[in-house]
Amino acid sequence: MSDRILNADLAGKIMSAEEAANFINNGDNVGTSGFTGAGYPKAMPKAIAAKAKVAHSRGEDFTINLFTGASTGDDADGVLAEANAINFRTPYNSDRTLRNQFNAGEALYSDIHLSHLGQQVVQGFFGPMQVAILEVVKINEDGTVVPSSAVGNNVEYAQYADKIILEVNSWQSAELEGMHDIYEPEQLWDRTPIPITNVGDRIGETFQRIDTSKVVAVIETNEADRNSPFKEPDEVSKKIAENFLQFLEDEVAAGRLSYDNYVMQSGVGNVPNAVMAGLLNSKFENITAYTEVIQDGMLDLIDAGKMTMASATSFALSPEAAERMNEKADFYRKHIILRPQAISNHPEVIRRVGLIASNGLIEADVFGNVNSTNVSGGKVMNGIGGSGDFTRNAYISSFVTPSVAKGGAISAIVPHASHIDHTEHDAMVFVSEYGYADLRGLAPRQRAERMIAIAHPDYRAQLEEYVERGLAAGGHTPVHLPTAFEFHTRLAETGSMLKQQDALVEN
Amino acid sequence: MSDRILNADLAGKIMSAEEAANFINNGDNVGTSGFTGAGYPKAMPKAIAAKAKVAHSRGEDFTINLFTGASTGDDADGVLAEANAINFRTPYNSDRTLRNQFNAGEALYSDIHLSHLGQQVVQGFFGPMQVAILEVVKINEDGTVVPSSAVGNNVEYAQYADKIILEVNSWQSAELEGMHDIYEPEQLWDRTPIPITNVGDRIGETFQRIDTSKVVAVIETNEADRNSPFKEPDEVSKKIAENFLQFLEDEVAAGRLSYDNYVMQSGVGNVPNAVMAGLLNSKFENITAYTEVIQDGMLDLIDAGKMTMASATSFALSPEAAERMNEKADFYRKHIILRPQAISNHPEVIRRVGLIASNGLIEADVFGNVNSTNVSGGKVMNGIGGSGDFTRNAYISSFVTPSVAKGGAISAIVPHASHIDHTEHDAMVFVSEYGYADLRGLAPRQRAERMIAIAHPDYRAQLEEYVERGLAAGGHTPVHLPTAFEFHTRLAETGSMLKQQDALVEN
Repeated sequence: MSDRILNADLAGKIMSAEEAANFINNGDNVGTSGFTGAGYPKAMPKAIAAKAKVAHSRGEDFTINLFTGASTGDDADGVLAEANAINFRTPYNSDRTLRNQFNAGEALYSDIHLSHLGQQVVQGFFGPMQVAILEVVKINEDGTVVPSSAVGNNVEYAQYADKIILEVNSWQSAELEGMHDIYEPEQLWDRTPIPITNVGDRIGETFQRIDTSKVVAVIETNEADRNSPFKEPDEVSKKIAENFLQFLEDEVAAGRLSYDNYVMQSGVGNVPNAVMAGLLNSKFENITAYTEVIQDGMLDLIDAGKMTMASATSFALSPEAAERMNEKADFYRKHIILRPQAISNHPEVIRRVGLIASNGLIEADVFGNVNSTNVSGGKVMNGIGGSGDFTRNAYISSFVTPSVAKGGAISAIVPHASHIDHTEHDAMVFVSEYGYADLRGLAPRQRAERMIAIAHPDYRAQLEEYVERGLAAGGHTPVHLPTAFEFHTRLAETGSMLKQQDALVEN
Repeated sequence: MSDRILNADLAGKIMSAEEAANFINNGDNVGTSGFTGAGYPKAMPKAIAAKAKVAHSRGEDFTINLFTGASTGDDADGVLAEANAINFRTPYNSDRTLRNQFNAGEALYSDIHLSHLGQQVVQGFFGPMQVAILEVVKINEDGTVVPSSAVGNNVEYAQYADKIILEVNSWQSAELEGMHDIYEPEQLWDRTPIPITNVGDRIGETFQRIDTSKVVAVIETNEADRNSPFKEPDEVSKKIAENFLQFLEDEVAAGRLSYDNYVMQSGVGNVPNAVMAGLLNSKFENITAYTEVIQDGMLDLIDAGKMTMASATSFALSPEAAERMNEKADFYRKHIILRPQAISNHPEVIRRVGLIASNGLIEADVFGNVNSTNVSGGKVMNGIGGSGDFTRNAYISSFVTPSVAKGGAISAIVPHASHIDHTEHDAMVFVSEYGYADLRGLAPRQRAERMIAIAHPDYRAQLEEYVERGLAAGGHTPVHLPTAFEFHTRLAETGSMLKQQDALVEN
């Protein structure tokens, strides 16, 4: 018996993914592990995709409705999308093929807050769930399982689904055992407080209890997560990070933060990496993170003794950082907790710990409304993810963004956001390479001034003209609806949001 | 000594409001009691307004920055606005004069979630607060105070302000004593769970502790709250209520609700009144309300034994209901709790108790984004109030609205909401007199079909045409930016959102 599968009953259910695919039927609701390219099942998606292709070649319908934690990898969303095997998908997707299907109306996507989905599934918003597929590191003798590099919605899916398929992935480090904190959500109308008062509080168990009688198949795999190499932050990212750190310093100076109580939430990417590099050389100490994803920069902060605790639901480490984590797992286990996403992203705990949220965006308007999901109003990119969970409940919510994209053809700050995922009531501070705009306590007309000040200089005159038109139209919020989307329509018509005459003046 | 002012020290500080106005200076941040026209100070606003007028007549600047719980009355916001005495105001205002000043840019307004403001004030987002003015029912011998018909942000303002002025209003029933549950919010970085697990849990004291050394004046008043008479629901409201109750019944049928666990949150107005009248004759029992405001219909439900507990931060009763409440105060005290708005609207508790939120709106778009605040994008009406606190954290969030306003010239369902306060990620169910649209788990193109089905028949073709253009443009969300605001621009140009040819076809 494998040293990863210690339960005799479940060892008796080992089979190939192809055999296990017999348990998946056309139209099934399938819930899987996986969050931000970590911890998703590697074998079953390929087997389901193959089954779909065979069915389609026979002229038969075959699609599933796929529920995950968040994004997966090419070998999950990717292969399923290529096989046209996904009818419906939620929440969060970063796979390009599948995204194109959403935008073409060939697959359906419902963009749900990460903290909400588990509850909604269990409450039956989507009907029954036929199968849960979970990647695990290990099956214990008593039939409990050790999740892999993400926890996601594993608890809810295993509880709610009729059948469970386990993928035991020996590529995943056995050293992950002990990092998880599996807390089972209580019944909706019988809930008590979630007893986390400090980021590092453990409130559950290091393993997941499952109803082993529901397990119909166990698959053995040895395949890597979708880890991507670490990229050195570019100059713009460094400048944004510098402005973000200045904002933190100014909060300390104003008495609204101190050097030893910064609770971080951070999106993933170049700017957050640059922020974390900056924090290494800052006066901040005892930093904690109550966030979704553990990224490279957090390991650096932990190594340097700057960060004492990081709570998340998933890893998104470069291969080098993953190796480092495994080598020093004993050490990191004292500083890292992986929780179910219902807990890592829970409004109750987010509000309680007083965190400073920091997320990216597609565009924001001059009044501080944020588009995180739909390019030019309609083309979905990835989804809202956890940005709403954190932004809505943070002590201070911030957004970080380069002022322009596509070589200057797209301004991140627009007159009117073409889709709105975070409203003016929630977004407080915006940071670009030109500074930060603190919108707290301001009326919309005041907000516009501050937002324009951090826009790219090439776009400031155009934005000012828009606000002038809005002011002339009258109203608390100086919008001018007939030209609200002129940046977007110009982009569609000319390939740039920049007015031709402005470009000429520049030249 | 008055039987309402039992503390000798504070009795020594009794003075006229005119005298007390000396403690208010130009540019002060002033925090007052008051929520939904209840419990606001009645004397000081007039005195401050008079002081401002004198100053202005001398050519001197005199304005204050006014922080409340929510809306007040003509004798507070109204008189101050008329005297041009308000520079900045937050959160929520329903006074017409002041609203006009916001829209003209003569006064500044920041539209903040009701659950957030207290924390933001205490954390210093607005700088120091010079004065807190609280209406109370009574000052106890030990210097503690009994709040009046609203709690609002009284705790935070009294804690944070340099000076406190108390208005002891003998118009307010002494029987209010015992209904309050005053829980002091903990320091931001030292918080423990809020120990409410059931709507009726009391976690604080029936009185408010204040630092009596900060009290600079005590004013005696005898003036009524802005109570408005109860209006019988009209036919459209009754039909909307019927559809809302059908939605509840369908949730029970689907196993997502049972007849004895409906936790209600409800906005104020005609439709909620009609819903509560309908609940009187429904199968629902043991209804509880975790909401902002106690309204007439809730007393009826309590009287009928249908509602066991109502938790709120304020009363909005008709004069008749208020009289009934006072007559049977002993009885109602067992079924009603008034909490600070930081607790009545707290995401933590809202999420925990699994409530069904139901709020009004200005307009919603076919994708389920909601405008609650700005007419035609820019003209602010009242503000977001607590609708975001509840919508974002409800078990199920719903919005109720007549399909049209202004005799059909305005459709409540539009192609693209001209301002967005609640996003597609939060809004789940919409109810009009034509039925309900359940958007849960749907992709935007599916949502549009359901929303159009509950729009007014005169507008359905126009809305369908818009979505067709969006689908032709391609994209996950079928928007068509060049015509996204055509309903609003047509309204501005012709006085109606309805296309002329549609109107002609009708005739």
